[in-house]
Amino acid sequence: MPNGPRPAIVLLSGGIDSATCLAIATHTGFACHALSFRYGQRHAIELDAARAIATALGAVEHRVIGIDLRAFGGSALTDSIDVPLDRSPVEIGADIPVTYVPARNTIFLAYALAHAELLGARDIYIGVNALDFSGYPDCRPAFIAAFQAAARLGTRLKDLTIRAPLLRLSKAEIVLRARDLGVDLGMTRSCYAPDEAGRACGRCDACVIRLKAFADCGMTDPAPYQGA
Amino acid sequence: MPNGPRPAIVLLSGGIDSATCLAIATHTGFACHALSFRYGQRHAIELDAARAIATALGAVEHRVIGIDLRAFGGSALTDSIDVPLDRSPVEIGADIPVTYVPARNTIFLAYALAHAELLGARDIYIGVNALDFSGYPDCRPAFIAAFQAAARLGTRLKDLTIRAPLLRLSKAEIVLRARDLGVDLGMTRSCYAPDEAGRACGRCDACVIRLKAFADCGMTDPAPYQGA
Repeated sequence: MPNGPRPAIVLLSGGIDSATCLAIATHTGFACHALSFRYGQRHAIELDAARAIATALGAVEHRVIGIDLRAFGGSALTDSIDVPLDRSPVEIGADIPVTYVPARNTIFLAYALAHAELLGARDIYIGVNALDFSGYPDCRPAFIAAFQAAARLGTRLKDLTIRAPLLRLSKAEIVLRARDLGVDLGMTRSCYAPDEAGRACGRCDACVIRLKAFADCGMTDPAPYQGA
Repeated sequence: MPNGPRPAIVLLSGGIDSATCLAIATHTGFACHALSFRYGQRHAIELDAARAIATALGAVEHRVIGIDLRAFGGSALTDSIDVPLDRSPVEIGADIPVTYVPARNTIFLAYALAHAELLGARDIYIGVNALDFSGYPDCRPAFIAAFQAAARLGTRLKDLTIRAPLLRLSKAEIVLRARDLGVDLGMTRSCYAPDEAGRACGRCDACVIRLKAFADCGMTDPAPYQGA
């Protein structure tokens, strides 16, 4: 591709953060190859959201990789453990949550790396952010930097960059960034326990954080909620 | 497990190297959780070998994780590209071979890391070795060290060790080590292009390297070969 836009891999979950990441990558001028994962999560509705977002934001490709994290068990997002409800933002940030999936971002980045090497892409976008890294060790800046170092050594991509443009933004700043980039946040999904129609519960950690972010911006979340 | 042996994850392909790794880990006193991958390889015969080796060497568990590297294409081990035959060991070591699977060890180690975190295992064994790392970037000592650094930052396993005990051994030294540890090398499989009965071709890169290693030791390979 001597004259076309440079390819980038964008990890896309269907939530606000990764959708904003994709918008940033396309605005930066990359030809975006979006990558999502089907990992036994109860909320496959996220994958429908990811597909629609990839199309709306002009990704050149959207792939869904099936991976079996259930083989390991151990998380509310993949098991039948109850998702905690009605926790405050302070409680949510206090420790590693039960919704933690072991080594999830390591696995996602490893697949993104394989795809990058095959395409000759030198950029991988991941939407980790400040609010998450208090609870999830694989969302910390030091982890992202260390994975980039390993990735450069383990492939032919000596100048690979793992881009995490949301890393030091608050959730409210991400919402504002998304709005400024024209992302339709009504298409994004965050809830850990949506109903069958895909409507958010409004009470799980992801909903609590999301609703607070919109409130902090003086905005109303356009996504559908149960009982609303 | 306060009084039992400490758990370790052992990546097990069914070849000589990973079988020797497993033997080293069990002799070191670890309770070994062997992990193999079904990744669209044409030689599923390796997985049968891995299962038999795990049992023979006393692994406490053997899991096979299905992963879809074919979604990315790009390698003779997963595509229908012809496997190169009759190359000399010097030719084989000269560059990254067509049998290279992008980011394969990164993906395997990421899954091993997830399993380690769930078990609370602080040790992961991988059978990469000196002869491989001339051709495969993800077999180099610097990559293993960098992945360990990322893994410690990305999980709760602050003292995780990636053990690669074969890293600086020649293939012949590995064969001798396996023999000394009582590994039945007749159970191991290395060939990239075995026949339906699981007999090795004797001509692909893996066979050339394997046969030279046995010859260097003055030993005969007990594994079955076509036309033998």
